[in-house]
Amino acid sequence: MNQFWSAMAQNAAPYTPGEQPRDLQYIKLNTNECPYPGSVWLNQISFSNQGMQLYPDPNAANLRSLIATRYGLESSEVFVGNGSDEVLAFSFMAFTSQKQPISFANITYSFYAVYAQLFQVPQHVVPLREGFVLDLDDYENGSGPVILANPNAPTGLAVPVARLERFLQAHPDRLLIVDEAYVDFGSESMVPYIHSYPNLLVIQTFSKSRALAGARVGFAMGSAELIQALDRIKNSFNSYTISTLSQKMAAFAILDEDYFQWTCQQIMSTREKTQAALRRLGFESTDSKGNFLWLRHPKIGGKELYWQLRQRGILVRHFDGEIVSDYIRVSIGTVQDMETFVKAMHAMVEEAGGSNE
Amino acid sequence: MNQFWSAMAQNAAPYTPGEQPRDLQYIKLNTNECPYPGSVWLNQISFSNQGMQLYPDPNAANLRSLIATRYGLESSEVFVGNGSDEVLAFSFMAFTSQKQPISFANITYSFYAVYAQLFQVPQHVVPLREGFVLDLDDYENGSGPVILANPNAPTGLAVPVARLERFLQAHPDRLLIVDEAYVDFGSESMVPYIHSYPNLLVIQTFSKSRALAGARVGFAMGSAELIQALDRIKNSFNSYTISTLSQKMAAFAILDEDYFQWTCQQIMSTREKTQAALRRLGFESTDSKGNFLWLRHPKIGGKELYWQLRQRGILVRHFDGEIVSDYIRVSIGTVQDMETFVKAMHAMVEEAGGSNE
Repeated sequence: MNQFWSAMAQNAAPYTPGEQPRDLQYIKLNTNECPYPGSVWLNQISFSNQGMQLYPDPNAANLRSLIATRYGLESSEVFVGNGSDEVLAFSFMAFTSQKQPISFANITYSFYAVYAQLFQVPQHVVPLREGFVLDLDDYENGSGPVILANPNAPTGLAVPVARLERFLQAHPDRLLIVDEAYVDFGSESMVPYIHSYPNLLVIQTFSKSRALAGARVGFAMGSAELIQALDRIKNSFNSYTISTLSQKMAAFAILDEDYFQWTCQQIMSTREKTQAALRRLGFESTDSKGNFLWLRHPKIGGKELYWQLRQRGILVRHFDGEIVSDYIRVSIGTVQDMETFVKAMHAMVEEAGGSNE
Repeated sequence: MNQFWSAMAQNAAPYTPGEQPRDLQYIKLNTNECPYPGSVWLNQISFSNQGMQLYPDPNAANLRSLIATRYGLESSEVFVGNGSDEVLAFSFMAFTSQKQPISFANITYSFYAVYAQLFQVPQHVVPLREGFVLDLDDYENGSGPVILANPNAPTGLAVPVARLERFLQAHPDRLLIVDEAYVDFGSESMVPYIHSYPNLLVIQTFSKSRALAGARVGFAMGSAELIQALDRIKNSFNSYTISTLSQKMAAFAILDEDYFQWTCQQIMSTREKTQAALRRLGFESTDSKGNFLWLRHPKIGGKELYWQLRQRGILVRHFDGEIVSDYIRVSIGTVQDMETFVKAMHAMVEEAGGSNE
């Protein structure tokens, strides 16, 4: 730190992303990427140096229009950004203030607290109930916006859309931001409610179910007025947020519906199979609707699981903190990845004194 | 606007980027892009759907290291972002506050005022002198950071580095941010002074001289402590700001030094030739060190020039506002583009009642 750092730089509590080892020697189950490549339709893009000297469309109009069509919305109801993290950051800028708290769970995507800290938004942190259950009753008495990941990360548990709708009805003056990064893996989306509730903003990403984490594209869906606020922030921050190629890649990813459906189905069936095998080994896990499992073993701590797996060439995510440090979050890889993973877990359980089998 | 808009969204005064027509029927001289394609080395990148499902390196370590090597710095003295606009936005977040003004010229890159407005930083706007000259004497008595484009946009005039050094020496407590987006077209860079002055931050871009506007990559160079503040902001905002492909493209662009030198030389020689021809037609212009000219004609207004050129299939940039509305900013295109442009200007002058020839 030195005298030139702003209060914002000093007070920031930066997020730590999962490891991105460059040597690729690991089975990488630590950042919830899709284990399958992007749609083969991407190969229709003729990549060359030609045209790279020109700015991209600052509004990504074609991509917005394709997303709107896919989700039954108007283009004016869709915002796109440089990954859903940028969309979340812009949402904090567009819809929160230092005068009103934002409510979110104590165990959820940890970037929410990072944004609140960065922009000095008071944090109303609501503990999850027993079994990591997010109960919206606990948010009823507050004021200001609410943000939640649905399904939640790292737990994978989803709040039913009917319960979310009741909240929207009861609190027309409170903005509800639903981060649906993992919604395509088996839980219900709030998108069909957008036209009914002007206090609903839904955020999704191309990094998980669309297999494009490398392209950095996320999007928000909501009333045209909410989207307009996000555009004002974007256009006051960075006119051209998405590269020419990323716009093209995302367009193909949204058009290739069959591959998207196949990818999601494949991941869900692998998840269920993996979970069943792990439960037989004595692991406890939530009923995750994400592309990951949230696991613990009664005899082996979370940190130990993390390190033992790492030594066996498998990267998973471990978080420090009360309760969560007993757990590991394991992204769903390919069928083969998960067979290897289950074998490793089996061996570890054997070493720790036998499974429950 | 509605009840959910934050004060930030309400008060924002978004930047208007130059037109990016999608039909490509125009000779595009309006956004200071490079008229030549990216380096042919980019074609070594094997583009496919494979690997796109993985996150990029959040720190862009390879790219930082290549930039550092190119400019005689350490990696810890280099920050990279999603275009230099993002780097500028992060710099406002990292180094300005609502308690201290930031000083910049009344005629300069208009995004500086947009950032100040967004983050509610008091603006100390300093008028340029006669002939668009930026005189640092006018900044001596203020306090807080100073930001300037050098060479300035849209005027193309550069402050000598010796004068900037004197300012750095006289004001060790004031941060000087030098936006060198256009420095490669014939003016001197402040990069060699980075190790001498901890109060100096230099920002450059791949969008102009490196012919990669479509890839969205910009960078900052300064003391490791300044860079650390930028990293803290980035990591509190968006972990993965630069796509996998954009990191690769920028790496090739920085490595292909010959093409970079050729591009800059070509643009400078085209600029000088174009300027000479236009002066013969009675146009007045500054001695631009950018990849653009800043022009007016005694008999034809700026807006009229803009519209007449547009009708002839040539897009240039016109800004509203006192003094500047008499002018147009014309990006330097290919040799052929500029011959067409000069012919169009000739015809317009003839129609308006004869040139000074």
